[in-house]
Amino acid sequence: MTYQAPLQDIRLVLEFAGLGQASATDLYADCDADLVDSVLREAARFAEERIAPLNGIGDRIGSKLVDGAVVTPPGWKEAYRDWSEAGWNSLSAPVEWDGQGLPVLIQAACTEIWNSASMAFALAPLLTAGAIDALAHHASDELKAAYLPKLVSGEWTGTMNLTEPQAGSDLSTVRTRAIRQLDGTYRVEGQKIFITYGDHDMSDNIVHLVLARLPNAPPGTGGISLFLVPRILPDGSLNDVHCHSLEHKLGIHASPTCTMVFGDIEGAVGWLVGEENRGLNCMFTMMNSARLGIGIQGVGIAERAYQQALDYAQTRQQGRAGGSPQTSPIIGHPDIRRTLLLMRSKIMAARCICYATAAALDRANRSEDQEERALGAELAGLLTPIAKAYSTDIGCEVAHLGVQVHGGMGFVEETGAAQHLRDARIAPIYEGTNGIQAIDLVARKLPRSQKALSLILSEARTVSDEIALRDGAQSKILAARLAQVADCLERATKYMRDMQAAHRHEDALAGASPLLELFGVCIGLTGLARLENARRDDEGIASLAVFFSNQVAVYAGALAESAMGGAIPHIRAL
Amino acid sequence: MTYQAPLQDIRLVLEFAGLGQASATDLYADCDADLVDSVLREAARFAEERIAPLNGIGDRIGSKLVDGAVVTPPGWKEAYRDWSEAGWNSLSAPVEWDGQGLPVLIQAACTEIWNSASMAFALAPLLTAGAIDALAHHASDELKAAYLPKLVSGEWTGTMNLTEPQAGSDLSTVRTRAIRQLDGTYRVEGQKIFITYGDHDMSDNIVHLVLARLPNAPPGTGGISLFLVPRILPDGSLNDVHCHSLEHKLGIHASPTCTMVFGDIEGAVGWLVGEENRGLNCMFTMMNSARLGIGIQGVGIAERAYQQALDYAQTRQQGRAGGSPQTSPIIGHPDIRRTLLLMRSKIMAARCICYATAAALDRANRSEDQEERALGAELAGLLTPIAKAYSTDIGCEVAHLGVQVHGGMGFVEETGAAQHLRDARIAPIYEGTNGIQAIDLVARKLPRSQKALSLILSEARTVSDEIALRDGAQSKILAARLAQVADCLERATKYMRDMQAAHRHEDALAGASPLLELFGVCIGLTGLARLENARRDDEGIASLAVFFSNQVAVYAGALAESAMGGAIPHIRAL
Repeated sequence: MTYQAPLQDIRLVLEFAGLGQASATDLYADCDADLVDSVLREAARFAEERIAPLNGIGDRIGSKLVDGAVVTPPGWKEAYRDWSEAGWNSLSAPVEWDGQGLPVLIQAACTEIWNSASMAFALAPLLTAGAIDALAHHASDELKAAYLPKLVSGEWTGTMNLTEPQAGSDLSTVRTRAIRQLDGTYRVEGQKIFITYGDHDMSDNIVHLVLARLPNAPPGTGGISLFLVPRILPDGSLNDVHCHSLEHKLGIHASPTCTMVFGDIEGAVGWLVGEENRGLNCMFTMMNSARLGIGIQGVGIAERAYQQALDYAQTRQQGRAGGSPQTSPIIGHPDIRRTLLLMRSKIMAARCICYATAAALDRANRSEDQEERALGAELAGLLTPIAKAYSTDIGCEVAHLGVQVHGGMGFVEETGAAQHLRDARIAPIYEGTNGIQAIDLVARKLPRSQKALSLILSEARTVSDEIALRDGAQSKILAARLAQVADCLERATKYMRDMQAAHRHEDALAGASPLLELFGVCIGLTGLARLENARRDDEGIASLAVFFSNQVAVYAGALAESAMGGAIPHIRAL
Repeated sequence: MTYQAPLQDIRLVLEFAGLGQASATDLYADCDADLVDSVLREAARFAEERIAPLNGIGDRIGSKLVDGAVVTPPGWKEAYRDWSEAGWNSLSAPVEWDGQGLPVLIQAACTEIWNSASMAFALAPLLTAGAIDALAHHASDELKAAYLPKLVSGEWTGTMNLTEPQAGSDLSTVRTRAIRQLDGTYRVEGQKIFITYGDHDMSDNIVHLVLARLPNAPPGTGGISLFLVPRILPDGSLNDVHCHSLEHKLGIHASPTCTMVFGDIEGAVGWLVGEENRGLNCMFTMMNSARLGIGIQGVGIAERAYQQALDYAQTRQQGRAGGSPQTSPIIGHPDIRRTLLLMRSKIMAARCICYATAAALDRANRSEDQEERALGAELAGLLTPIAKAYSTDIGCEVAHLGVQVHGGMGFVEETGAAQHLRDARIAPIYEGTNGIQAIDLVARKLPRSQKALSLILSEARTVSDEIALRDGAQSKILAARLAQVADCLERATKYMRDMQAAHRHEDALAGASPLLELFGVCIGLTGLARLENARRDDEGIASLAVFFSNQVAVYAGALAESAMGGAIPHIRAL
């Protein structure tokens, strides 16, 4: 089973997120339907023909460290070269650095397509995009001129060097050191772990962004600076940085996860990005864009797993469904149909969330109006941890269900269903674990996002009101559920505010994960209900909202109770 | 991190399941506390010292097909020999065939311990136990005498040969043929797939139980017979059966999953077990005991994953929890504690369900009273699909959470957390997928288990009433929740009966999986609440019930709604 980009679903959700809506404040005036259509169709073609077939090979062979350099699987290098030469890397990059300046929303749709085709492949450009963001926002003009054009074209790739053995979720303990030289450059020394595409053979240069500490820097996160450390120096010589070893991982075998050594000999040459001791700030720029990208990975891998399961369910004959005299394809059995609908409705919900996050970023970047830009930024900030965590959680769940639909064949590696489960498993972990996302949501984002929260709630209620006006019991039930979910979310977010006002942080943090899930359910159901309301002649789309409402959003009340459960004491139960 | 059998938890749940309770109808009069204690302690010692250390080796090296024969990983053979020589294989086997005749309940506790130590290792005896059951119930005296003693001692192992490429969940399409010979034996010809331990080097002989079709047998399941086909014939010659290939699987690498060829040359020699065309019946005996065993695998792998995650959470330093001035172990963070409590409380709930199933089997087998035996059998029948599916689902979930607690290290294979997730993934699939278990529960078991259902509901309500009598808001809340969960289960099971009475089978089947989960939540909460009520001075145990009630059982109302959602139409949404 190969991959076919679900262009109809993607177009529908793009439209829901604002693309192609004629309005006075149209952010997307430069993107007519023909342009969007041709971008999507070309992306689909490249992904289906060139990337998707590499996914299994990438898993079986993986990237290898040979004589100190990483060799990617057969076909990987050529596919990446053709992909970047076709301009795919520069889609939403700034025009001033030779990017195409297209909206993040269109980028999001393409990112989904690349990740469905191969998560391991799509990771490389995802990190380059983060590096472009960080440099475009924080680097000096000289650094920009020297690095951005080749990063934008994809001739060079970027990395994020944050983690050290003792410094994972908590970066305050970073130990890598950087010492300023007379010529204004820095010498960087230290070891970084879990560096995705830290070394590989697909591009001419690798541009490392490295968190390090200056001598006498203040302790903690306020003493960390960001440096650009290229694999190959401007004079063409090799910098003092190399890949020491590769991790042996559960999944995404083709994506090399490197332990990088900086300054084994005389110190790696680096340049400061942004101000000294403000490195974490610069990194956050990069991380926010990367976090949405990882959320979209969740959607992408889930879609791939769903397509494979659906195909199997339509062809595998087993048992007699509904009293049929002949054996039936297993999709005839209610429990299999239920499983497939659970998969598909959750994918569509997560797609709505991720695309809405991308649209919020466009609002922040593209709007002419200052207030609109501020609201867009607030909304994007609030939505990012939800997009990341909710979508990667459903990525694992859908891949898990995909294996289940295959029965025994799902456990056999040749089938490919298990690879999706293995690949999907990283996404809730990297770029900040989903637990960290939930903490970010409750402790950092919620207190400063009252407008964005109001917007989310009022959108749910508006859609609910519209549907409630229609005839038919099913419409009333859907409308009532959506209103109820919004009420649950309002109650649970108020609880969080109250707890924080009372300095009862443990009570708030203990419910952070269920609160994040509740946010996901509310925004997802709002999206699906909007689609249903707009296309209720389309039985397929309409039934997704109804199913998600009855089988997923039905848990909203319990999620809210769970979120408001209060602190978990340090008990002896563990 | 190695494994330590959680003897305190196990003893507690054994007690709750009836062991050691002094009563007039004590089924376990022959098992005094000292005996139980020494069995558990010796099992723990063997598992911890001899089996657990092999688990990682088994995963990395796996079983291999070398010159047509399966070679198990280093140390496997010796461990199995010492294990069976110590008498562990014969624990609950019939005394008349040299078994020790101990209760299934004690066997269940040991099965959990073996599976925590290594799922792949524990699978071999699990299948032997199924073969012993089938032969003891259905074979001729001659066959019993020839095969049972060596199967009971563990010198020989057993297999279940059901699946063929076209015949998985639906065995009606089995094609393997058997032809009666003049000497009363049969010649068996055909290919079977997914045969666990179909070949290996750990025992002197392998006793295959094979489903096959006689010439002119009626079509469908009524035309399938069961045959005993030994690897080595009574005269010492090799039978015409061999392993053609091994599957390359996601997990349990040390457990060889064989494609078996019977009768490549002149037909494998086999003996009929039970009557002609009644093979599926005999196989069901075997499958029911195996299904409980697989449920216990879910508990076992979850316990192993939990212990490893807990250990990591207690040692890994990251971030400052609760405003601490120093970095804290990550268990200090509320979201990690929440995750660990979710893991532990679900394990204890599933342990309660599995041990209750084992106790029901003891009631069916050991009671003096005819009515009690019938009730035990009915209860065991109803509980078996719940024990299998609920426990293996939480097995995957807990292993998934275990990876998450490890952060990036969880995705690195050397850590070992990912192996538990890969190993756990098979359990919801084999011995009847969890979807099949749910169908079995709704379509077959529920309609004939009114007494057993009443027992489950009245037990929940009795415990609730007892707790409600106590002082304190927390007791009232727990009691109310348990009563509510019982009400939900009663309502949802009534819905299933109504649908079936109205021949609306699709409406019933569509809700089978959530109904099964609701059963699990009700029986699990009843168990935890009983433990809480008996040991409320033990903060650790008491808080498990409260947490499970507030964070898991809180979803019971929604599960009931989901179960009663009605038929899923054949829509175009897929």
